[in-house]
Amino acid sequence: DAHKLLVLAGDGIGPEVMREVARIVHWMSAHRGLKLEITEELVGAASLAVHGVPIRDEVIELARQSDAVLFGSVGDPAWSHVGFDKRPEVAILKLRKELELFANLRPAKLFDALIDASALKAEVVHGLDLMIVRETVGGIYFGEPRGIETLPDGSRRGINTEVYTTSEIERVARVAFDLARKRDNRVCSVEKCNVMESGLLWKEVVTDIHKREYSDVQLSHMLADNCAMQLVRDPNQFDVIVTGNLFGDILSDLASMLTGSLGMLPSATLGPVRAYGKRNALYEPIHGSAPDIAGKGIANPLAQILSFAMLLRYSLNRGEDADLIETAVSNVLASGLRTGDIMSPGMARVGTEMMGQAVLRE
Amino acid sequence: DAHKLLVLAGDGIGPEVMREVARIVHWMSAHRGLKLEITEELVGAASLAVHGVPIRDEVIELARQSDAVLFGSVGDPAWSHVGFDKRPEVAILKLRKELELFANLRPAKLFDALIDASALKAEVVHGLDLMIVRETVGGIYFGEPRGIETLPDGSRRGINTEVYTTSEIERVARVAFDLARKRDNRVCSVEKCNVMESGLLWKEVVTDIHKREYSDVQLSHMLADNCAMQLVRDPNQFDVIVTGNLFGDILSDLASMLTGSLGMLPSATLGPVRAYGKRNALYEPIHGSAPDIAGKGIANPLAQILSFAMLLRYSLNRGEDADLIETAVSNVLASGLRTGDIMSPGMARVGTEMMGQAVLRE
Ligand SMILES: CC(C)[C@H](C(=O)O)[C@@H](O)C(=O)O
Ligand SMILES: CC(C)[C@H](C(=O)O)[C@@H](O)C(=O)O
Repeated sequence: DAHKLLVLAGDGIGPEVMREVARIVHWMSAHRGLKLEITEELVGAASLAVHGVPIRDEVIELARQSDAVLFGSVGDPAWSHVGFDKRPEVAILKLRKELELFANLRPAKLFDALIDASALKAEVVHGLDLMIVRETVGGIYFGEPRGIETLPDGSRRGINTEVYTTSEIERVARVAFDLARKRDNRVCSVEKCNVMESGLLWKEVVTDIHKREYSDVQLSHMLADNCAMQLVRDPNQFDVIVTGNLFGDILSDLASMLTGSLGMLPSATLGPVRAYGKRNALYEPIHGSAPDIAGKGIANPLAQILSFAMLLRYSLNRGEDADLIETAVSNVLASGLRTGDIMSPGMARVGTEMMGQAVLRE
Repeated sequence: DAHKLLVLAGDGIGPEVMREVARIVHWMSAHRGLKLEITEELVGAASLAVHGVPIRDEVIELARQSDAVLFGSVGDPAWSHVGFDKRPEVAILKLRKELELFANLRPAKLFDALIDASALKAEVVHGLDLMIVRETVGGIYFGEPRGIETLPDGSRRGINTEVYTTSEIERVARVAFDLARKRDNRVCSVEKCNVMESGLLWKEVVTDIHKREYSDVQLSHMLADNCAMQLVRDPNQFDVIVTGNLFGDILSDLASMLTGSLGMLPSATLGPVRAYGKRNALYEPIHGSAPDIAGKGIANPLAQILSFAMLLRYSLNRGEDADLIETAVSNVLASGLRTGDIMSPGMARVGTEMMGQAVLRE
């Protein structure tokens, strides 16, 4: 009984970093008894080019049936003028929505060996280890009405709607509180309740569920603008941050950049727990498709490799294998190998493939 | 013929930092022939306590009739549970909306003497001088429908609507392009067009007006999540950033924190140009009401003082007086005086009043 894994490499650097994961899978099958039934499919611009859509319904169905999805990245400037429904990005948005992958876990963790790569002073970013829990199937990303309408005088109006319901807020708050209990037991909930009613409801519902079910966890609230400032001023004040789709998009990118190692950071997006404790889950690097460096063999494969480690740990219950990979990555960094994105003086610059092989050797 | 100035100190540290501006006004009246007809009014929690509303209609009318408004800050935790219409913040939101103050200019400028106060490495933040032009009367701050509704099953839904029209986007883009021409001639327009149609329209309209009227200015586009990252990675890549209300709120706070001197940064919010070249304008520090340090006499008055300098320059056409103040502030910093927020080793810590008087002496 092999685990069903769906691999969606996507666009840009996606396929080349995914190749390095394939090597590790191969090695683990041979040496660690890992049994995977792997299906690969096209998504994003790659799928648009062949099938005319960013993701086919069959692929969504495959994702639903699989034990886990390993995702690369989507996005391609060549498709940016083709129309809103034909954005490569629709692939990831649809996957999240259709599989109800509502909780995106985005760690911003400093790798000690990479402290020089951060734009922040060492004393500010030292030891950074925070987790952003971002809601991913609600908010302004999916609310109706939406669109662009032409007015009688020929001018236009663009409209989007932010909507959050009690239950949508509750379930993502639970994920954050549960996580905090395994960490430093602190949650900071972020919204813009001084301007938006959806944020006001967000704050009330989080406060409520905290009182009812999680009063042992320390809860604080912060406005999104202040949170952006505090992440720069003193990121170590945070343990777990929970927030909506749009703020989470911005703040998690910001948080990961603080570590100076965007190319290093994995993420997991989880769906509801179903029968037998099963839940759909998708794993992807935080970085995007990086079209500017795609195909050059210089992309950092470590975020994709660490995403696979997260997948082993959380979806396949193979924590030891995940440890193996994470330790290998640490050792490779300690040995001084660096791709361009995390390069600093005195280190050895390598490409995608050499980095992947170094991890494998470890 | 004195200039009509409306002073709205507001809440928290607002009144105490405004007092230091009053000293400067007094001095300038005596020594520089500055003629001001000053009216002071309550806004925010201060107005709620006395009048039961965050801002009275008469005060809005006064603001409309004045040559400029000098605003302090609003916000008070004591009023945060009283109801959405009774937020102190309504004062500033209403002023912006009713006076059509659509373009908020937020400089993020590093004061060389304060480079140590930044969380960023000196080489990253060195020489930083960017300007964020934030749209302030549209977007999700004001769109309808909005509110919290209770569903038949007792659960609730929070709703807000983001709306932007062609003309709203055009006029703020023009402000940004005009500013860029006086600076480094580069504008970066920021939205989230891969997810939001309002962002797609934003991008199209900015592109369009650039082609028609400003093709001499260099224009680029960036997604909001990427912009947050780039502001940390390499803020010096930017000259003028133009963006919507919500992204502008977050990104401008982030940008100002990069300088390490939030307590130093002023802002101007401009309305449409009317007959005789007149336009309504409001000047306020970027920092908020800071209730935690209010009344302690330790707040930094320099952002409020520099907001007054901006007012002299842009609304009263008294550039020389503005220069005088700005030079005085530089000199005071160079002499080593610091309030707590910008303190660094070896400098002399002073309170609000001593800082204000030091500027006056200069
Ligand atoms: C590709 C894009 C639609 C996506 C998002 O905005 O959610 C990305 O930025 C992310 O954060 O995963
Ligand atoms: C006080 C608040 C309503 C306001 C805003 O969100 O616009 C503030 O954060 C600002 O940026 O001026």
